[in-house]
Amino acid sequence: MTDTNPLLSDRDVQFQLHELADVSTLCELPAFADHERETFDLFVHSARTLARGALYPAYRALDAEPPKFANGRITVHPTMRALWPRLAELGILNSSRPYAVGGQQIPRSVAIVAEAYLMAGNAAAYGYIGLTTGAAHLIEAFGDDWLREQFMTRMYAGEWTGTMALTEPQAGSSLADITTRATRAADGSYRVTGNKIFISAGDHDLTANVVHLALARIDDAPPGIKGISLIAVPRLRPHGGELVDNDVHTAGMIHKIGWRGLPSLVINFGERGDCHGWLVGQPHQGLAHMFQMMNEARIMVGVNGVATAAVAYHEAVNYARERRQGRTPGARDPRTPQLPIVQHADVRRMLLRQKAIVEGGLSLIIQAAGYADRAEHHPDPDVRRHNQRLLDVLTPVAKSFPAERGFEANTLALQIHGGYGYSSEYLPEAWLRDQKLNSIHEGTTGIHGLDLLGRRALADGALMALGREMTTTAADARAAGVSSDWIDRFDAAIQTTAALTMALAARGQQGEAEFMLRHSTDFLDLFGTVVIAWQWLRQAAVAARALPTASASDRGFYEGKLCAAQYWLATELPRIDHLADLCRRGEDSYARMQPEWF
Amino acid sequence: MTDTNPLLSDRDVQFQLHELADVSTLCELPAFADHERETFDLFVHSARTLARGALYPAYRALDAEPPKFANGRITVHPTMRALWPRLAELGILNSSRPYAVGGQQIPRSVAIVAEAYLMAGNAAAYGYIGLTTGAAHLIEAFGDDWLREQFMTRMYAGEWTGTMALTEPQAGSSLADITTRATRAADGSYRVTGNKIFISAGDHDLTANVVHLALARIDDAPPGIKGISLIAVPRLRPHGGELVDNDVHTAGMIHKIGWRGLPSLVINFGERGDCHGWLVGQPHQGLAHMFQMMNEARIMVGVNGVATAAVAYHEAVNYARERRQGRTPGARDPRTPQLPIVQHADVRRMLLRQKAIVEGGLSLIIQAAGYADRAEHHPDPDVRRHNQRLLDVLTPVAKSFPAERGFEANTLALQIHGGYGYSSEYLPEAWLRDQKLNSIHEGTTGIHGLDLLGRRALADGALMALGREMTTTAADARAAGVSSDWIDRFDAAIQTTAALTMALAARGQQGEAEFMLRHSTDFLDLFGTVVIAWQWLRQAAVAARALPTASASDRGFYEGKLCAAQYWLATELPRIDHLADLCRRGEDSYARMQPEWF
Repeated sequence: MTDTNPLLSDRDVQFQLHELADVSTLCELPAFADHERETFDLFVHSARTLARGALYPAYRALDAEPPKFANGRITVHPTMRALWPRLAELGILNSSRPYAVGGQQIPRSVAIVAEAYLMAGNAAAYGYIGLTTGAAHLIEAFGDDWLREQFMTRMYAGEWTGTMALTEPQAGSSLADITTRATRAADGSYRVTGNKIFISAGDHDLTANVVHLALARIDDAPPGIKGISLIAVPRLRPHGGELVDNDVHTAGMIHKIGWRGLPSLVINFGERGDCHGWLVGQPHQGLAHMFQMMNEARIMVGVNGVATAAVAYHEAVNYARERRQGRTPGARDPRTPQLPIVQHADVRRMLLRQKAIVEGGLSLIIQAAGYADRAEHHPDPDVRRHNQRLLDVLTPVAKSFPAERGFEANTLALQIHGGYGYSSEYLPEAWLRDQKLNSIHEGTTGIHGLDLLGRRALADGALMALGREMTTTAADARAAGVSSDWIDRFDAAIQTTAALTMALAARGQQGEAEFMLRHSTDFLDLFGTVVIAWQWLRQAAVAARALPTASASDRGFYEGKLCAAQYWLATELPRIDHLADLCRRGEDSYARMQPEWF
Repeated sequence: MTDTNPLLSDRDVQFQLHELADVSTLCELPAFADHERETFDLFVHSARTLARGALYPAYRALDAEPPKFANGRITVHPTMRALWPRLAELGILNSSRPYAVGGQQIPRSVAIVAEAYLMAGNAAAYGYIGLTTGAAHLIEAFGDDWLREQFMTRMYAGEWTGTMALTEPQAGSSLADITTRATRAADGSYRVTGNKIFISAGDHDLTANVVHLALARIDDAPPGIKGISLIAVPRLRPHGGELVDNDVHTAGMIHKIGWRGLPSLVINFGERGDCHGWLVGQPHQGLAHMFQMMNEARIMVGVNGVATAAVAYHEAVNYARERRQGRTPGARDPRTPQLPIVQHADVRRMLLRQKAIVEGGLSLIIQAAGYADRAEHHPDPDVRRHNQRLLDVLTPVAKSFPAERGFEANTLALQIHGGYGYSSEYLPEAWLRDQKLNSIHEGTTGIHGLDLLGRRALADGALMALGREMTTTAADARAAGVSSDWIDRFDAAIQTTAALTMALAARGQQGEAEFMLRHSTDFLDLFGTVVIAWQWLRQAAVAARALPTASASDRGFYEGKLCAAQYWLATELPRIDHLADLCRRGEDSYARMQPEWF
C-alpha cells in the first residue's frame, strides 16, 4: 500500500470528461443549464479529496474487521461510523436528482466519475451510499407523496439508508420464483412475510433506520414475474410521530470475501405477523419499476469494476517503477544494478493490459452515462429515444466488461507484486476479492450474455444506431490521422458483429432459440471487445489531434493513450473472428455434454 | 462444501494411469521391476483414503486458523499436528526414492497421482511433505555420507522436515542477487549469515528440527549465479550427540492469502555469528544442483494447480446438479419446477471448460512424470536422453498451464456457486486463493515464458522430438476414428508452432533478443494450448476405441471425454493463430510504451 496511490489518474479523468466526452456540452440541456465545467470539476474534486483523504486510508481497517452480528443487530466498524456523515455531506446521495427533491442536477456522466473515486477509495464504504440512492430513487420515481416525505427525504439526507431486497434462498437469478408475501391491510398498507438473503447494508448502526425496497407477491398475484410488487419495508415504522419496531429481523450474516465493510444479511420479514410495508408504484409492476433503474444499477457495477481495477493498476504501476529485480536479456552482468521491473517487457505487457481495461472501461461508462443523461433530459423525444436505445444495448457490456476484464486486470496487479502480492500485507489481493462480486451481483455474466443477445442487440434499431456511432468514430479517427491499420480492423469488426447478430437472429426466428443463445457469453465477450475497441479509437483520435501541440509533460500522456489503443486494436480485437466463428456455427461440445457425463 | 467431493475422479484416474499412460509398462524397467498394476493402485488408494478421510475434512480449520507466531516460534493448528504422523506414515516422503534410502521406487507418474489426491484434499498440509521431500532429495543427490545420515535419513522418515531457502528481500526472481554469506570454518563446516524471506514451513512444532536448504555465497565466490552454493542449515545442529541451537531465527510471518496452514516466514541466519551450515555438493554449483531438481519442483506446482482446480471442479459439478434456478429459454412457465443449473448451456460451458483444464492438465503431468521416470531409469542412455529432452521442453507448460488456466477454472467454479460462491461459507473462494500462488512460486509465468522460448524450445532436437510424439498421436487418433476435423486442426497447429519457433529463433540469431522474446508469455500460452490439445487427442483416441464395447456406465464417461476433447480442439486451439501472429510480427504496443507514460 503506497501513500501515493491516486485511485484514478486525475489527468486521465480530465481527458475523459473534457477532451473526450466534452461533458460541458450537457450544460446546453435545460436540466444542467446552471452548471459549467467548473462546477463539474469542483464536484469531482470534493469526492476525490474525501476518497483520498478518508476513504482510502480506512480501507484496510474496514476489510480486516467486518461488521459484527450480535443480539440480532449489526454493528459496523467505528471508522465507518466516522465516515458516514462525511459521505452524506458530500451531496452524492442525490447529486443527480432534481432540485425539487434536494438534488443538484449533476449529469450522471459527471457524477459517476466522482463515484468512481469514492469506490476506488473504498467500495464497501461507498456501498451504503449507492444502495440508499438506488432505494430512494425508486420511491422518488414510483412512491406516493407520503412515502416520498416519510422515507425518500430522509434517505437522500443521509438520515436513513436503503436496501434492495430482491434475492431469496430459492430465487437468486430467478426472480420469477420469489415467494415473499404482502397482504393488504385495512389501512391500505401491507403485512409482509418472507425471507430475504444477501441483503447488503440490511442492518447497521450508522443511521436510525433502514428502508428495504423489497420484491413481494400481493395475495392473488399471478405467478412469475408478472405478479411481483415493490414494497417499502422499514426496519422501524412511523407510528404516531414515533418510530416503532416493524418486525424486521436480521437472521444471519454471510461472510463475503470482499466488500467486507458492508454486511450481507439474511433478513426475515414478519416473524410475528406485524411487519408493515407500503406499496411503491403499481401492484404487480414491481419488476418493471425495478428494471427502470436497473440500467443505472448495472452501470454502477461497471463503475465499481473500473474503480476496483483502477486502484490496483495504479498500485502496480507504482510498484513496478520502484521494485528492482533482474536485468534485461543480453545484459545480465550481475555486478550492474538491478532494473525496476517496469523495464521488463512482460511487466509492461501486464501494465498496459490493465491500462487498456481500466481506461477503456472508464470511457465506456462515461459514454453510457452520457446516453443516460440525454435519454432522461434532452428536450427532443427522438433524441431521448435514440440515446435510450444506445444506453440499452451498451448496458450489458458496461456491466460485464469491467467485471470480467477488471478481474483479470486485478489478477495482473497481484501478479506484478510477486510473492508480496500473494500476501495480505499488500492490498492487490483485497481488491481482487472485491472485484469478484461484480460478475455475480446485478445479474451474472451469463445472464447478461443472454440479455444482450436474446433481447437488447435485437431491439428495434439498436444495432443500427450503435453501428452509426461507431462508423462516425472511425471516420473521425481517420481524419485525425490515427493508424489506418487500426481503423480498418475496427471497420471489419463492425461488419463482423453486424453480420453475426443478423445470422443469429435469423436462427432465433426459425425457432432455434437454443442454437442462437448457445454461445451468448462468447457473443458478450465479442461485443464487449468491439465496444472497447471503439472506446480506444475515440481516445486515439483525441490523442492524435492533441499530440502535435502538446506540452512536454502531456506528450507522454497522449503517447501512452496511443500505445494502449494499439494494444487493444492489435492484440484484443483480432480475437473476435474466432469468437464469431464459434457463435455462428454453434460449436456444440457443451450442448452435447450431458449432466451425468461430467 | 459437500461431503461427496471426490477430490479427483477415481474413474478418470484409472483412465489416465492405465488406459492412457499405461503405467504398468514402466514395470519393464529394472527400477520398477518389483511393481505391478496392483501395487500402483494400492499406493494411490492409500493416499486417496487419507486425503478424503483426514486431509479434506481438516481443510476449513487449517484455512481459518493459520499457524501462530509468538516468542520467535511457530505453532501450527492442533489438527495439523495430528495429521503429520499419518502423512509421514504413508511413505509418500520418499516413495519414488531408491530402496537404498528407504524408498519404495514408485514411478513418479504414479506417485504424483497419489500426491494430487493429497493436494486436492489439503494443499497446505501436503506442503510440509513436498518441501521435506525436495530438500532431502537434494541431500541424497549431492550431500556427503555424513549429511545423508544426519539429515536425509531423518527427513525421509518424517522425523525432521526441510525447506527450500532461496528467496531474499532483494532477490526474488533474480537469484543472481543473493547475498547470504557462508564462511568456511576450521572444522570444514560454514558460518552462515543472511536473511531469507517467503520460507515455507521454515518453522513449526510438527517435528524436532527443520533443515533449510539455503542458497548462499561462499567467501570470494564469483558474482552472479556462478557464485552460489547450496548449504544445509538446520534450526538445531548436531553437536556431541545432541541437538543444540544453531542461531536460526524466525523474524516474521507473512500472511499469505492461501495455503494458510503452511507458514511463510522471514528467517535470519547467524544473528549471533553462530549459525553452522554444511556445503551440499560442489562450491559455486548450488544453482546447478538446485536446477537438477527444479523440473521436479515445477511439475509439482503443476500437480498442485491441477489438484486445486480439480477439487473445485467437482464441487461445482455437484452444486450445479443440485442447485435449482430458472428455466430454459422458451419454457419459462413459472408454475413449472426450476431446473438444476447444470441444464443451462452457459453453466455446462463453465463446467466443460473446467473439465478440459483439469483432465487435460492431469494427463500432461502424468506424461511429463513418465518422461522423468524413463529419463532417470531407462537402461538405454539414448532413451534416457530422449525422455529428458521431452521433459525439459514440457516443464514450463506443465508448471504454468495448470497455474494460469487452473486459476481460471477455479474462478469458474466460484462463479457457478453465484452469491454463495462469493462467501467463505463455501470453499471455492478458498481454492481460488490457494491456486493463485502457482503462477508466482517456482518462477512466475512470465519467467517460464522466457525460459521456454529463450532456451528450452530451442534446445537441440527438443521440438523435433516433441513434434514426432505429437504426429504419432495424430496418426493414432485417426486410426481410432477420432474426428478428422480435430486432427487436421491439430496437425496445422503443430506446423504453426514449429514454423513460429524457427522464425523467432532466427530473429534471436540475428541478435534481436528483445524482438524474439517480446511475446514470450503469448508463446507460452500458444505452446500450452497446443500441448493440451495433444493431451485431449490422446484421450480422445482411447475413448473412441473404448466406446463401442463400453459398459452402460462407462459410455457416459467416454462420451464426456470426447465432448471435452471437442471443446479444447474446437474452441481453444483456434486461438493460437492469433497468438502466433502477435509473436511473429512482434506487435510492439508495450515495447514502445515508456515507464513514465503509464
